[in-house]
Amino acid sequence: MSIQEIAGGINSPKGFQAAGVLAGIKPGRTKPDMALVASRVPCAAAGVFTRNLVKAAPVLWDTECIEQGGTAQAVVINTGIANACTGSKGYADTVEMAALTAKELGIRREQVLVLSTGVIGKPLPMESIRRGIQELGRSLSRDPEAAHTAAEGILTTDTHAKEIALEFTIQGKPIRIAGMCKGSGMIHPNMGTMLGIITTDMMITRELMQESLKELTEETFNMVSVDGDTSTNDSLLLLANGQAENTLVSKRDSDFECFYEALKTVMTFLAKSIAADGEGATRLLEATVLRAGTKEDAKRLAKSIITSNLTKAAVFGTDANWGRILCAMGYSGAFFRPEQVEIRISSEKGSLVLVENGTATDYDEELATAILSPDKVTITADVQEGTETATAWGCDLTYEYVKINADYRS
Amino acid sequence: MSIQEIAGGINSPKGFQAAGVLAGIKPGRTKPDMALVASRVPCAAAGVFTRNLVKAAPVLWDTECIEQGGTAQAVVINTGIANACTGSKGYADTVEMAALTAKELGIRREQVLVLSTGVIGKPLPMESIRRGIQELGRSLSRDPEAAHTAAEGILTTDTHAKEIALEFTIQGKPIRIAGMCKGSGMIHPNMGTMLGIITTDMMITRELMQESLKELTEETFNMVSVDGDTSTNDSLLLLANGQAENTLVSKRDSDFECFYEALKTVMTFLAKSIAADGEGATRLLEATVLRAGTKEDAKRLAKSIITSNLTKAAVFGTDANWGRILCAMGYSGAFFRPEQVEIRISSEKGSLVLVENGTATDYDEELATAILSPDKVTITADVQEGTETATAWGCDLTYEYVKINADYRS
Repeated sequence: MSIQEIAGGINSPKGFQAAGVLAGIKPGRTKPDMALVASRVPCAAAGVFTRNLVKAAPVLWDTECIEQGGTAQAVVINTGIANACTGSKGYADTVEMAALTAKELGIRREQVLVLSTGVIGKPLPMESIRRGIQELGRSLSRDPEAAHTAAEGILTTDTHAKEIALEFTIQGKPIRIAGMCKGSGMIHPNMGTMLGIITTDMMITRELMQESLKELTEETFNMVSVDGDTSTNDSLLLLANGQAENTLVSKRDSDFECFYEALKTVMTFLAKSIAADGEGATRLLEATVLRAGTKEDAKRLAKSIITSNLTKAAVFGTDANWGRILCAMGYSGAFFRPEQVEIRISSEKGSLVLVENGTATDYDEELATAILSPDKVTITADVQEGTETATAWGCDLTYEYVKINADYRS
Repeated sequence: MSIQEIAGGINSPKGFQAAGVLAGIKPGRTKPDMALVASRVPCAAAGVFTRNLVKAAPVLWDTECIEQGGTAQAVVINTGIANACTGSKGYADTVEMAALTAKELGIRREQVLVLSTGVIGKPLPMESIRRGIQELGRSLSRDPEAAHTAAEGILTTDTHAKEIALEFTIQGKPIRIAGMCKGSGMIHPNMGTMLGIITTDMMITRELMQESLKELTEETFNMVSVDGDTSTNDSLLLLANGQAENTLVSKRDSDFECFYEALKTVMTFLAKSIAADGEGATRLLEATVLRAGTKEDAKRLAKSIITSNLTKAAVFGTDANWGRILCAMGYSGAFFRPEQVEIRISSEKGSLVLVENGTATDYDEELATAILSPDKVTITADVQEGTETATAWGCDLTYEYVKINADYRS
């Protein structure tokens, strides 16, 4: 199977359009703050959502739509205000967003999914939102620039848009799949902790879509942490409109495998983009655990490393403080024998074993600092207990993270 | 019962001596870096230790001593190097520290407990340690100044010594109990996450001591978090030498209650001191959860609030970002209904309800900022599910925390 990355964004798959506009939800913003993704025909829809007990209004609405109908034709998104902890008024606002978007597109409101992100607890400025939705309806386009504007219209503290488009072939027909997401703070493994939308023109059953999304979330978005905080709004949506006109894929055959691999590529790219663009981050931190006794242990260990504030601060300081790595593994709750652990750091500057059999090697501190300096750094911990492997993605902890979050609302 | 705070430190209870010296474990330090606490007679000894799978050598030694013998006569402590992840050489160094101290005091080495704190993975500079122990033996004293020097000799990045002494009366006899501790980074609920020593001249059974220490650790040290990292060296020791000459307390009677209350006062004071002196902290953050359905839920909720990086950064910025508080409660794993939560902030500057029935009240942002500005700030969350209450202590997340931890080793 061959999967090609192609230019373009969320509207690359056949039959999808996108738009982004500046509705003025928060004063002072100059980038777009609303986005719309729409298909010309109804799509099979799947979704995974935050496990936080406190769920934003759009999460409640989308869950209902996907569980009851299983189809959707559009997604409308606003940034700036999360519409979380806003009570029945907040829910009514979400329904109104769906209804207004539906009116623009001439479809039923249950076919419109809604995503919101931003400050918790404030009411949406519905006047701006209403104008924004009208403008979004008028701006929908197949143009790649429109996709990029949409990808910008969902960002909060992210420093850049996150989008990807792929193409592969099944049954002699080209299939496209594309994704965009936002997420920079309040990012921690427990669902994706972000907003993400994936579109495809493949024809595939809703059941396979939902299964794939759930399985792959576990090893992509749920393996990312910026700060250990799981948000109230995390949502990842997958829409498939069938416009590639392949024969319906309804079981786990080789066609499905192509789709699964492409979906995994999209989700891994988006998840890593979120980690690399973590609030205030100067580098992407990747932790891979080798030879754990169970898959669960491998994941726990990898996540514990990238979540440790002390490890993250040490990476910011390019300090090969492997004691903190081993310490974070030790309190993860996973089983391993400290005395047989090997820890290695690597990057484009080289690779270095810091720990063998649980104690320090006689490594060169200067080389270690050099290896920790590039934009992307990998920590590999080999625990020699079994055969399971896992990778998690995070970022360093910086002054800038504190600055961003000490006065985010102002 | 009446418990009085008295001047003095760890050597206030009868028959205890203390000393602190500068042994030169890390270059450049001008404060003491070693301490010794010794009793003139053997003590009943109890201890609780880190649950991190990676345990420092002294933790292994102390656990053996306490489990096998149940008595101890001295505790020798070094800061600068944690003697963790140092293999069999590290363990041998710990045993040598015990043996050398025992020699100075003319007792068996199994009667000497050892505590180390500092950088993980480096070997102890045994030449300095040996000289330090000799000097400690010569410096032992009942003088309060010696207690203070000892309290300084166990600090790492702490900005000040943490010590307390209390007196109460049972059976007409004055009983004293005193404590000192260190802990500033790598502090998170799962045992105490620090080094702590408590001495008393009361005569009480080892069983009651161990039970009390364990129970009270759950609601004091285990309710503290600075950064979510559970260390490899956390240890809390309790030594009782019986020199007050009361009749042995061996059951949970009214005499025991006095002891329990005094021990709780000491442990609460020390735990809060650690939170307030969290690395880079500018203020103590106290979170109290009211009316949770179960004790476990109350504790989870309180801990989740003080552990959230986003809440901690908001407190640093004196930003009443209650959405982050409710969000942290939501991902804690505890049950509550967001729509019936009340959240209040208070300090010496006043008290303000931010959230009622899960949504924002129309509160005054300026007043909220004023309330969040003093050294100590309390967040109270009333979940109205049951009758259980818990309090946790933490601190704000600051630039300084990142700075301290980006180059701790250098």
